[in-house]
Amino acid sequence: MKKISILGSTGSIGTQTLDIVRQHKELKVTALAAGSNIELLEKQVREFKPNLVCVFHEDKAKQLKEKLNDTTVKVVSGMDGLIECATETEADTTVTAFVGMIGIRPTIEAIKAGKNIALANKETLVTAGHIIMPLIKEKKVALLPVDSEHSAIFQSLNGEVKKSVHKIILTASGGPFRGKKLSELGSMMPQDALKHPNWAMGQKITIDSATMVNKGLEVMEAAWLFDVKLDQIQVVVHPQSIIHSMVEYVDGGIIAQLGIPDMRLPIQYALFYPDRMKLNGGERVDFFKLKQLTFEEPDMDTFYGLRLGYEAGKIGGSMPTVYNAANEWVVAAFLKGEIGFTDIPELIGEAMKHHHLLQNPSLNEILNTEQETYDFVREFIRSEK
Amino acid sequence: MKKISILGSTGSIGTQTLDIVRQHKELKVTALAAGSNIELLEKQVREFKPNLVCVFHEDKAKQLKEKLNDTTVKVVSGMDGLIECATETEADTTVTAFVGMIGIRPTIEAIKAGKNIALANKETLVTAGHIIMPLIKEKKVALLPVDSEHSAIFQSLNGEVKKSVHKIILTASGGPFRGKKLSELGSMMPQDALKHPNWAMGQKITIDSATMVNKGLEVMEAAWLFDVKLDQIQVVVHPQSIIHSMVEYVDGGIIAQLGIPDMRLPIQYALFYPDRMKLNGGERVDFFKLKQLTFEEPDMDTFYGLRLGYEAGKIGGSMPTVYNAANEWVVAAFLKGEIGFTDIPELIGEAMKHHHLLQNPSLNEILNTEQETYDFVREFIRSEK
Repeated sequence: MKKISILGSTGSIGTQTLDIVRQHKELKVTALAAGSNIELLEKQVREFKPNLVCVFHEDKAKQLKEKLNDTTVKVVSGMDGLIECATETEADTTVTAFVGMIGIRPTIEAIKAGKNIALANKETLVTAGHIIMPLIKEKKVALLPVDSEHSAIFQSLNGEVKKSVHKIILTASGGPFRGKKLSELGSMMPQDALKHPNWAMGQKITIDSATMVNKGLEVMEAAWLFDVKLDQIQVVVHPQSIIHSMVEYVDGGIIAQLGIPDMRLPIQYALFYPDRMKLNGGERVDFFKLKQLTFEEPDMDTFYGLRLGYEAGKIGGSMPTVYNAANEWVVAAFLKGEIGFTDIPELIGEAMKHHHLLQNPSLNEILNTEQETYDFVREFIRSEK
Repeated sequence: MKKISILGSTGSIGTQTLDIVRQHKELKVTALAAGSNIELLEKQVREFKPNLVCVFHEDKAKQLKEKLNDTTVKVVSGMDGLIECATETEADTTVTAFVGMIGIRPTIEAIKAGKNIALANKETLVTAGHIIMPLIKEKKVALLPVDSEHSAIFQSLNGEVKKSVHKIILTASGGPFRGKKLSELGSMMPQDALKHPNWAMGQKITIDSATMVNKGLEVMEAAWLFDVKLDQIQVVVHPQSIIHSMVEYVDGGIIAQLGIPDMRLPIQYALFYPDRMKLNGGERVDFFKLKQLTFEEPDMDTFYGLRLGYEAGKIGGSMPTVYNAANEWVVAAFLKGEIGFTDIPELIGEAMKHHHLLQNPSLNEILNTEQETYDFVREFIRSEK
């Protein structure tokens, strides 16, 4: 029996994780946490019967507690509640699927409590890789990537040693605006950017895919996860999203992981690693129908959010936090119609320019940098209007 | 220091193996064997200074002995000499790169002597897999495939367990006649068939690629090597020969090995397994230049030599020997201009129809079956003229 705690159970990754749990009686959920969607959370608690449930917002937690007063589940709230879920005694693996910096502290506490981490929260490594990775080593827990690209790299490294790695080839669908030029992107509206060609994902991550900021974050995450330099990571646009990423070895041989785009595959892989299990309802690649896989160089002039990602990663310290926080704020502003699509990378660049770099920032400094970046971007947008 | 014995050192695989040895001072050649090319063999002996050298043809062996009487190398000949090379005391790995059934007995003796086998001889497993595989297990030696497809599968299985395998996807370039119909193939001459689009290989194997009999043999070999059923092996035509083969797992995830077509890569991988070494002069895949990888269903009506391979493999027993021996003879006849291109699968089919199946044949029965098949095909060609 594998026992798991899920942080962010009502989101895209969270619900797909529960879909995997539904398929395997070897999996048991011991804790669930979500931000505010208590309607779905109530259903999940009734179905999966965890010991513990956390709602981040206190008022919502009170409401859920009333709804669930016929059950024995313990309802908690706030950051303390999240951490209680992340470190739930019975769980051996914590799935960190919260979007945003809110996921970092619970992840750190889960590692300290000796839990294996199924990592679906990008911000954790992007902003605090220098804190997380040594802790993972010290506590000897497993860090299993859930993102499809990082899972593909992890799978392609299986059975190999680090010194054999020449580079990592991170594939990118190119998003809905692939092939467009910068001049065409100014007029794009949220509804245009939300049409992802291959993956069903949350709103924020879909916009990140359209700007390719998503790849910028993934490049930084891959550098931490697989202990490679940023220059050893090549982004290749591959519109079909069948090859989920690859590793090129010193001998010129490349190992790749392929599959139909389905997040349940990397989620299940992380939960059962090193075993592979049948995936019910999962489609298989049919090469005769597929006919071709294509590859393009990313257009870093048009999608210069990706270039900024490489820059932020190379600068290091607190700069990746600025990149991530600025992006978070401006994507929200774009979705609210406050700014245009091409303002997204522009404002990230402004925030990076404005920032005074901190080397090796502590968790508090990271969170302060985040807040300062939010403030800067908010003021910048206000002043431009 | 890794010490290797090379059977078939003057052929395509043999010379490329020596090219790898030249690059790595960790490799030492202790024995060389060839059929009759004593000019090249003499050079190889002077460069690599093995303890032992074998020329299969006795007369040629005498000539080589005279040429090398200023050295301390021991010159041997015949099947006894081949076996002496295969089991050379100092060697820890025997590279079996002889083409044809001649390679089987030395391979068996090498395994019995506890040598690891770098297997480049297709006939070994196709005809005697039921003898070889239990022996490999019993003697606890490694069987490392050198063929690019089988090496790719082996690499794609690295770190995984057998019960996770759903199927093997064996790629095929399709050869020089890909896309042609049966009616167009009758007039093809040896020079047409010898133009392989991607791989520099020996003549016989290049014709086998044009008929796709090569894939028939590879399917049978893969079934033995990786302990899967023939129905679990899917041949996919992939004209660029960049994906060298793949393994599809039960979860729908696929692991693939890719690279520029260069036989030195799988040879080096087999010699250094599980380590990967830099390959000097090896090209790397550039996805931006490559642009696309394409896939097609093999046309088993036109290239029905492949279909016959599946049939022979499913029938088992002595039938794969008939398939292989008939093909060997008719390819030689085609290269001599005695028969047409489309006669190749036709005559293999005739030989298979004529054969009285032996279950679980001994090595002697296999060799008898080979001779009977040669006789049958020779007579068949004679009577048709």
